[in-house]
Amino acid sequence: MPHAFLLELTPSQGHPRPEYLSQYAHGLFFHLLRAIDPELAKIIHDKKRKPFTLSARQLREIVLLRITTLDDELFKPLLKVILQESLAGLSLGQDSYRVARVLATPEGHPDAGFISWGELYSAPPLRRLELRFLTPTVFTTSRSDGKRHYTPLPIPRLILQSLLSSFQHYSPKPYDETHLAGLALVFEEQLEVHRCEIRTQRYQAGKTVLTGFTGRITLHYPEHTAQVMQAVGRLGVLAFYSGVGAKTPYGMGQVRVVKESAW
Amino acid sequence: MPHAFLLELTPSQGHPRPEYLSQYAHGLFFHLLRAIDPELAKIIHDKKRKPFTLSARQLREIVLLRITTLDDELFKPLLKVILQESLAGLSLGQDSYRVARVLATPEGHPDAGFISWGELYSAPPLRRLELRFLTPTVFTTSRSDGKRHYTPLPIPRLILQSLLSSFQHYSPKPYDETHLAGLALVFEEQLEVHRCEIRTQRYQAGKTVLTGFTGRITLHYPEHTAQVMQAVGRLGVLAFYSGVGAKTPYGMGQVRVVKESAW
Repeated sequence: MPHAFLLELTPSQGHPRPEYLSQYAHGLFFHLLRAIDPELAKIIHDKKRKPFTLSARQLREIVLLRITTLDDELFKPLLKVILQESLAGLSLGQDSYRVARVLATPEGHPDAGFISWGELYSAPPLRRLELRFLTPTVFTTSRSDGKRHYTPLPIPRLILQSLLSSFQHYSPKPYDETHLAGLALVFEEQLEVHRCEIRTQRYQAGKTVLTGFTGRITLHYPEHTAQVMQAVGRLGVLAFYSGVGAKTPYGMGQVRVVKESAW
Repeated sequence: MPHAFLLELTPSQGHPRPEYLSQYAHGLFFHLLRAIDPELAKIIHDKKRKPFTLSARQLREIVLLRITTLDDELFKPLLKVILQESLAGLSLGQDSYRVARVLATPEGHPDAGFISWGELYSAPPLRRLELRFLTPTVFTTSRSDGKRHYTPLPIPRLILQSLLSSFQHYSPKPYDETHLAGLALVFEEQLEVHRCEIRTQRYQAGKTVLTGFTGRITLHYPEHTAQVMQAVGRLGVLAFYSGVGAKTPYGMGQVRVVKESAW
């Protein structure tokens, strides 16, 4: 069951302004994992694809840390250890924070929520998907010489492939090879950009600085294949939890599906 | 020798507001071609790749029509017939216009100019290419089922491939197969988006309405291959005349290379 929850963190003393917030949040998260189980922390650290996303922002004194978990086993022990560790204070860089509030439902905060895989499978089919990219988003692909190539553009294929890849990885019922190949072809060639407005900005993602884009896009699937529309619907729901593209554990690729477009 | 020149057209009477300016400009252009030689007009009309671009805009009473020619044989007869036909009036839709001025040099207008292929070949090499997309730009590719796919995003590969394709088609000394394959690979994988800011808008291109993007992008070529930097330099110069992407004979894909970035 994918979860998204927020920690409202208040400084234990002073008025800290953490400089490398995404890196500190990452460090805190692994500290918490180690407190659950050092072996688990090591396994997750070594995974190429991380089963969580983190995004932190400072609002006056408060740091709002949004955590999403894609791995079903992660949410409950994580919440437990957060509450335990909070007594001694949670560190962001050199500064100690207390958990003022945990917001884990959409009633508590619109960026929080959870959904069962069963509910996600029955998401309403979509022919049009409007996404807002709240934090800088970038896609990583491999060049033929093995080097990494970064694409800070909302290319429909890369957006949907990123989501599909998360779905395949975490869903208990991933698409089989045949369906997967069919979806890949549609995402490659048949999704149209109906509307788009983006700009790039530089982003400190841990120790590296990358160019990502923020803004919004509306993708349109002009054909009528029920299976594709169903997949787009599911992936749109998943996006809230998985984010899109690279460096989502450092706050990049935070997206929201726009349900009632004001565009 | 690629040419770019502007016709300042003033209405023979009244205050017309041509509704389908790109389509009317297209019609006028073929009228002029037929006046040069009906056979030539037919040949050009049947060409999939048109050896000209047209972009028209209305400034109060005046229509400013920018014409670029890529085919060496086109400029002189075209200019001659424009001056001849202007006596009887040039039609944009139902309305008649006179040629108030022809601006054919950069001194007369920054959007006018010409360059010999020899000068273009010796364009300074570039590792960074900053482009402004003045009119909506879209790329057309073929889907595997033969249908057209439109991409209104500034994908580096599509920008450079569009320019390279124009270069190959019109330059007296195109790249040979080996160099072409090398450039194609670099354009596919090695150009990076350094900065980008775009938004889409709908555009009436002749009889069809398409989504294109305007805005700006800076592309960066991080490697040091002299031949690639030379090609990027040449294609940047060509862009002023060829435009980029689809429907350039209807005013789409008008770009300018930014030499001194204010970004």
